[in-house]
Amino acid sequence: MTKHTLIDHIKAYVTSSDNELSEIVGFFNTCSYNKKATLLPAGKRCDKLFFVVKGCLCLYFIDGSGNQKTIQFAIENWWLTDFLAFQNQKPSNFYIEAVEHSEVLAISFSKYQELLCKFPKMETYFRTIYEIAYGAALMRLKYINSFSKEDMFFRFRDDFPEFVQRVPQYLLASFLGLTPEYLSEIKRK
Amino acid sequence: MTKHTLIDHIKAYVTSSDNELSEIVGFFNTCSYNKKATLLPAGKRCDKLFFVVKGCLCLYFIDGSGNQKTIQFAIENWWLTDFLAFQNQKPSNFYIEAVEHSEVLAISFSKYQELLCKFPKMETYFRTIYEIAYGAALMRLKYINSFSKEDMFFRFRDDFPEFVQRVPQYLLASFLGLTPEYLSEIKRK
Repeated sequence: MTKHTLIDHIKAYVTSSDNELSEIVGFFNTCSYNKKATLLPAGKRCDKLFFVVKGCLCLYFIDGSGNQKTIQFAIENWWLTDFLAFQNQKPSNFYIEAVEHSEVLAISFSKYQELLCKFPKMETYFRTIYEIAYGAALMRLKYINSFSKEDMFFRFRDDFPEFVQRVPQYLLASFLGLTPEYLSEIKRK
Repeated sequence: MTKHTLIDHIKAYVTSSDNELSEIVGFFNTCSYNKKATLLPAGKRCDKLFFVVKGCLCLYFIDGSGNQKTIQFAIENWWLTDFLAFQNQKPSNFYIEAVEHSEVLAISFSKYQELLCKFPKMETYFRTIYEIAYGAALMRLKYINSFSKEDMFFRFRDDFPEFVQRVPQYLLASFLGLTPEYLSEIKRK
């Protein structure tokens, strides 16, 4: 059941037989994480790439003053890891944590290499996914440079209303670069 | 000569015969742009992906107050376009301009599709390039959330000293979210 979510997602980008797809998802482990569980700690070799089937993950770091700074969220059908560290098999620059109870598919770096080698269409799938993700990151940099933090919140709320309901306010504040108090104040307005 | 730069770059990521490589680069047009030439205007269908052989390009938008905001630079061996708009063949959200006289290889969306279809190893090449680019974008978001704009400049100068010499100060200021005056002041310190 869990792996069907990934099968459907792959089918949206590449054509593949049912047999192939079932072999492809065989490369992944199904994992279940409780709210606040750490999937990857910063400083540890980044050996996993995660696909969210259900729930929500976040990618964050701890700044010099000890504050948690959220860089990225991943909800259903999103991929998450420290991509630079994963590709180079270096220690992660970020923590990955479950924001809520989450069902996740995980693949190790060696299995990922094996998968790409055995199923070249997965190169097409991931090329497309990363092309979108990189393009979206450039758009996010545009928003950061266009809007005040307050306007970022309103834009975010209008674009992802369900998401704003789901995510704890301290994480949303950290993602938008606001203090939780200031976010509460904006929401009261 | 120009196309050899791309051949060398592809060879750094995938194994390919000389014949294949020469066929691959045949999909690209060589273009030469004077300083300040516009390669892609915002609002026009984004039909080109650019590879910088020599020189420097920048990706920017004009904010509500008419200021140019630089989101990304591309120097030798970098790829640049509005990736979301390119993939969806939508109007570009950004302008692409030559920062200095630049030699560029360009590929249209239809040729890009044809290339990926005919040479699946180019899927591997671009998957790797975008994986790095997306990973680097997440690291950049970490820096934006870690450092003051002043510290961003010092970090940038230490990491890319040659680049800071090459790029006009008003563009560097725009990239770092500073006014040109404030950047001059930081540099005087």
